[in-house]
Amino acid sequence: MLSKNNIKFVQGLCQKKTSALHQLFIIEGDKIISELLSQNSYKLHTLYYTATWAATQIFTHIPNNYIQISEGEMVQLTNMQSAPNVLAVVHYNAPTALPNANDELILCLYNLQDPGNLGSIIRTANWFGIKHIVCTSNTVNAYNFKVVQASMGSILRLTVHYTSVDKYILSHAGVPIYAATLQGVNYTTVPKCKKGILVIGNEGNGLPIELITNCTEQISIPKIGNAESLNASVATGILLAHFCS
Amino acid sequence: MLSKNNIKFVQGLCQKKTSALHQLFIIEGDKIISELLSQNSYKLHTLYYTATWAATQIFTHIPNNYIQISEGEMVQLTNMQSAPNVLAVVHYNAPTALPNANDELILCLYNLQDPGNLGSIIRTANWFGIKHIVCTSNTVNAYNFKVVQASMGSILRLTVHYTSVDKYILSHAGVPIYAATLQGVNYTTVPKCKKGILVIGNEGNGLPIELITNCTEQISIPKIGNAESLNASVATGILLAHFCS
Repeated sequence: MLSKNNIKFVQGLCQKKTSALHQLFIIEGDKIISELLSQNSYKLHTLYYTATWAATQIFTHIPNNYIQISEGEMVQLTNMQSAPNVLAVVHYNAPTALPNANDELILCLYNLQDPGNLGSIIRTANWFGIKHIVCTSNTVNAYNFKVVQASMGSILRLTVHYTSVDKYILSHAGVPIYAATLQGVNYTTVPKCKKGILVIGNEGNGLPIELITNCTEQISIPKIGNAESLNASVATGILLAHFCS
Repeated sequence: MLSKNNIKFVQGLCQKKTSALHQLFIIEGDKIISELLSQNSYKLHTLYYTATWAATQIFTHIPNNYIQISEGEMVQLTNMQSAPNVLAVVHYNAPTALPNANDELILCLYNLQDPGNLGSIIRTANWFGIKHIVCTSNTVNAYNFKVVQASMGSILRLTVHYTSVDKYILSHAGVPIYAATLQGVNYTTVPKCKKGILVIGNEGNGLPIELITNCTEQISIPKIGNAESLNASVATGILLAHFCS
């Protein structure tokens, strides 16, 4: 049986501060966890599973950090509406060197706040083969539970960096740097781009003018109807579809 | 002061059954409500507002169905995380005749379940000038509070119909009918399309084979990386960007 402290510890990891303090985050559900266990991109801290999940596995031995719990206990640990059969506490990856936009297309995110948006953007970027996303430190944490869920496993398949996007851009003189704004040129008139940077702004405020002036070009998705704006993840999808395919 | 019954009535409208029974739904926030009040697309039932909102308005007279309430009462009525200054109870529009896909591009949605997805699709469709969305009756209700919020006002600017999408498609022999699937031709190879139908499937299960066989062509967004799928609203955005721009 899980101790009260153990339950409290896992529950606490859905909070930003506690998660960052321990450098641990939560992943839930059969599909994403089977992917997690089959590769080495993240280090497992503890796996909590029910008898239902165990019945689907073939164990030669059960590792020490695998803990079988009851369905009632899983209900206490989960952040999902219906409790999964397996839940993993996973170590954050240590930050790695920033990627070079001379070699590949880098997606930069400026202060995105909505976890669902970031998760969907990670999923979309992964679909289009993006390997690295560079975010401002004010962007929502990619290890936030809602981001992980919305990414549908893609969080395991690419790297999200947090740094100064302004400085990152300034360090890349010579590559095309596209700022997605509402006043740019029609994105379809811009050449497809496999190397360079695409910068997406905050949901409500877009990109600051100082940052835009350091980009090589502003691009926009032409409006035909009368919506005020596009959702950030939809706009990112449309632009990546153009650049990458 | 609002009666307990009044509070209960408004709170109840966030439930699907109660909302459908009374044919009433809720819209919250300054921006979307000022749009609602400036046009005639929907009929207002009751407007609840705080002194803060009233201070921003110029009234010649205050209509009978405008009710000033305290901020504490607004907290009880709202579905939002931070209470707005104004909240409207609005009548459903009566169903209108189905649109003719010989005249315009129609977006069809098959059993979409996620309110955030539907709201984002309504917003995206509105951006690209789509006037009518035709949904299966098992698609999430467009008057669901989360759909309305995610649509960012676009719910007021286009019409969402609920009917049999299978029958709707069969009634349109002669127009191009594109099914978004994972096994179709590259969407960029298909001509832009201002008249016809684009069909988007359920988030988890896609489109049923019987429906696909009644479409003229399957189209797909080529995968470059290794995500399993795209979010339904992102995929819709990418396809509409191609067809409409």
